[in-house]
Amino acid sequence: MVQAAAVAPVPVPVSTEVYQRLQHFYARQMQSSDDLDVPAWAGSFTEDGVFATNAFPEPITGRAAIAAHCDRAFAAQAAAGIVRRHVMTMLTAEHAAGDGERIHTRSYVMVLETRRGQKPTIYCSTLCEDVLVPVDGGWQVVRREVRRDDL
Amino acid sequence: MVQAAAVAPVPVPVSTEVYQRLQHFYARQMQSSDDLDVPAWAGSFTEDGVFATNAFPEPITGRAAIAAHCDRAFAAQAAAGIVRRHVMTMLTAEHAAGDGERIHTRSYVMVLETRRGQKPTIYCSTLCEDVLVPVDGGWQVVRREVRRDDL
Amino acid sequence: MVQAAAVAPVPVPVSTEVYQRLQHFYARQMQSSDDLDVPAWAGSFTEDGVFATNAFPEPITGRAAIAAHCDRAFAAQAAAGIVRRHVMTMLTAEHAAGDGERIHTRSYVMVLETRRGQKPTIYCSTLCEDVLVPVDGGWQVVRREVRRDDL
Repeated sequence: MVQAAAVAPVPVPVSTEVYQRLQHFYARQMQSSDDLDVPAWAGSFTEDGVFATNAFPEPITGRAAIAAHCDRAFAAQAAAGIVRRHVMTMLTAEHAAGDGERIHTRSYVMVLETRRGQKPTIYCSTLCEDVLVPVDGGWQVVRREVRRDDL
Repeated sequence: MVQAAAVAPVPVPVSTEVYQRLQHFYARQMQSSDDLDVPAWAGSFTEDGVFATNAFPEPITGRAAIAAHCDRAFAAQAAAGIVRRHVMTMLTAEHAAGDGERIHTRSYVMVLETRRGQKPTIYCSTLCEDVLVPVDGGWQVVRREVRRDDL
Repeated sequence: MVQAAAVAPVPVPVSTEVYQRLQHFYARQMQSSDDLDVPAWAGSFTEDGVFATNAFPEPITGRAAIAAHCDRAFAAQAAAGIVRRHVMTMLTAEHAAGDGERIHTRSYVMVLETRRGQKPTIYCSTLCEDVLVPVDGGWQVVRREVRRDDL
């Protein structure tokens, strides 16, 4: 076991070029959620992508299921007259140990909510951990794990 | 019309180099506002720059008018003993379709306010859309459109 | 005096490459604080590093003293069941005038707090000014000055 650990591959931080492009990727992804753009949001996950969170009893598995969930969630949000802003910060990113194609990221996502005529409130603060795979010069999320700080 | 659409130029995301410099540009611009530095803030707009927002009945047109507005607003803020922090996040940026010199950006700007001895509050959450032109190795804002989420 | 000013060295903004790496450096540093990882946090300061803030009567001087302070602060935070998120934004960075090795940064750091079963609150909004020195391809903080907006 000590020997296995000794030869375990070590994660490598991404290049500045990749870090930059990841920032832009995530900015678009967060905007697509707040624009209630289900195809863009769901399309940022792989076909078999998984969205797991301590807010749900089970992970949501597959792009189609993720899209169906968003259809309902976005409709409820629009009906309630709520504008949300997903604010991702403090992004760190590494190539996965043993699979340099995959990228692991870790970031904070704060969700702001504003109702008409009212001050914004912070709906939740979360830690977001992703596994990404390269697709067409960009990335898609294979697995996202969101841990809400309040649960 | 179908034909026109078919040949319409498509926006192109900015390079990582430009994206990076835009982040730095905006960090300086937001700081200049919160430092109550009217010349720096107004100087980040073109002479004929426009600041439009759903919080005002009319756009503010021209750098001089923008400076005059800030003179009043910053003085009121200072008199009230309020420290503001304009926090821009989730920046996306593209070269304008048909005019690669111009850059269109879209971002979130949250405005924090702190009064002495009190906890910070979120004054507003906004969507900020800019048209930028290159000036002296940097940029200036030709038109900013800020949409407050609560209005 | 006019002459002295005329020959004073002028700060130079960092390259996009360095700016990028600074963003990643700070994301890791902020995460290390919120992960309650004392060695990582204290290790991001030089041996003689200084942490000064208007929240304390005196600066904390030296990595060992910074580590001892964090040991206590992190234990109190964990005992209170509080999750904190240090969110750094609006980073600007320049090579120090007259010493290009040193980098001066200025940024906003907002501290979010979440208690189990409760909505997040903003503990404080701050202005953070650092002097950094290059170490092993990264940086360490020689001096940090944090000014809380509420004090």
